[in-house]
Amino acid sequence: MTEPSRKVAIQGELGAFSHEAAKVLLGGDVEILPRTTFDALFEAVVSGAAYRAVVPIENSLAGTIHENYDRLAASGLRIVAETQLRIRHCLVGRPGASLATVRQVASHPVALAQCRRFFAERPHIEAVTAYDTAGSVKDLLSGGADTQAAIASRLAAETYGAQIMLEDIEDDPENYTRFLLVSREPVPGPLPNKTTIVFTLAHEPGALHSALGVFALRGVDLTKIESRPLRGQPWEYLFYVDVVGDPEGAAGAALKDLAAIARDVRVLGSYPDGLRRRQG
Amino acid sequence: MTEPSRKVAIQGELGAFSHEAAKVLLGGDVEILPRTTFDALFEAVVSGAAYRAVVPIENSLAGTIHENYDRLAASGLRIVAETQLRIRHCLVGRPGASLATVRQVASHPVALAQCRRFFAERPHIEAVTAYDTAGSVKDLLSGGADTQAAIASRLAAETYGAQIMLEDIEDDPENYTRFLLVSREPVPGPLPNKTTIVFTLAHEPGALHSALGVFALRGVDLTKIESRPLRGQPWEYLFYVDVVGDPEGAAGAALKDLAAIARDVRVLGSYPDGLRRRQG
Repeated sequence: MTEPSRKVAIQGELGAFSHEAAKVLLGGDVEILPRTTFDALFEAVVSGAAYRAVVPIENSLAGTIHENYDRLAASGLRIVAETQLRIRHCLVGRPGASLATVRQVASHPVALAQCRRFFAERPHIEAVTAYDTAGSVKDLLSGGADTQAAIASRLAAETYGAQIMLEDIEDDPENYTRFLLVSREPVPGPLPNKTTIVFTLAHEPGALHSALGVFALRGVDLTKIESRPLRGQPWEYLFYVDVVGDPEGAAGAALKDLAAIARDVRVLGSYPDGLRRRQG
Repeated sequence: MTEPSRKVAIQGELGAFSHEAAKVLLGGDVEILPRTTFDALFEAVVSGAAYRAVVPIENSLAGTIHENYDRLAASGLRIVAETQLRIRHCLVGRPGASLATVRQVASHPVALAQCRRFFAERPHIEAVTAYDTAGSVKDLLSGGADTQAAIASRLAAETYGAQIMLEDIEDDPENYTRFLLVSREPVPGPLPNKTTIVFTLAHEPGALHSALGVFALRGVDLTKIESRPLRGQPWEYLFYVDVVGDPEGAAGAALKDLAAIARDVRVLGSYPDGLRRRQG
């Protein structure tokens, strides 16, 4: 039995890609606390039911999960780590199942949309919408599904004792999801070299350019910028920025300068850069 | 009978907020071509079935509809006008209906979520998810619904001969949606003073700052910046920017400079600024 202090909340069922991310981020010896919704995911850490949550924030094909930035800022939770996962979809059936008898395949709509070629090449197979990738495997194995197969991760197949019929059926291999690990408090750990901040700007020409200038001036790299609506102020925005570098060094100096230019600058977390980017 | 050349495509049923936006943008004498999906909405103009489409691009509470930026760039359609609409939700019933007998209210999930107070104050009333706001009124009046009321626009109530039982039941009055009018070709019209562009950047420190610098240098205002994933290039982005000013003046000069700094700069349209912003 894992102590409550080692429970990690994920959105989705056991075997979801978030579960895989939790293993990468924290090792295999954690207890997963599945949550149905993203609101419940954040609440699990706020309430102390879990000591960490794994939050998908961005997919390299579908883009940012913007509502999770809103939840991050509203919750007051801190980002303590990140990782990226290559999203590899498997066609999964009951033990002994044969591809020849598959007529309906269940999965989350996003996973179905990422495997269009699989369905295009097999017009006799119907895509059936389910609430979760791993959940569709769970339902398949528990006998609660009318379908003959599901699309999910290798981990989902292993978790529920299902059979992998096909691997890597996703259309695009450049399919990565970035996950954040969040906690109630900052966590001392490996040298943080990336900081996520949020701020607002006075609406005047060049405001964003001035704000970004504090980083450019010092050669500090920004790897991501997102805007979200500011409630009650139509067409004004919150900006979320990922700043690369030592928060005790140039990046930290830039952040101090930013406080003089932008409004309501908040640090959401400093953590080791966990993304592998192409050279050049 | 309206000529095909005057048909305006909207996503949703007659009476949808997009229908209201079409009337604001083009006057009352247009024929509305309802489309079920956003893909079909863009296709209606690309194929020539409609001469314009009304595209919701952003809501002041929910944020940007990012996929519509993707569709805009992929379709090659041009933005020729924009407007904003205050989203005012009505509780709508069959003629002669009474609020006292309402137990189920149908609407699109986004509209239901924007009227949480209405439901919180009436725990005996259940929210029922429907595919469309105006469609839920249509179904109500055609007898095809088990519900007793719907949440939709005043126009939807008028379109289907329904009765407005309550007005302005949205939680937050600062609820605006911005709509773009798109066309296959640029359209000569009133002085354009806003230009939407899309570009990518080399991934190097300060690249975005340099790109925004061409505007700041000339005091040219940017009212919006959005990033979207670049397919096949994980963690690289397309940037969408709204530039204010005469495309023949300082804004145009800045755009020329941008072409030297950014990659694949494309103008998606120049059009009159149609947003009302607060002073200060």
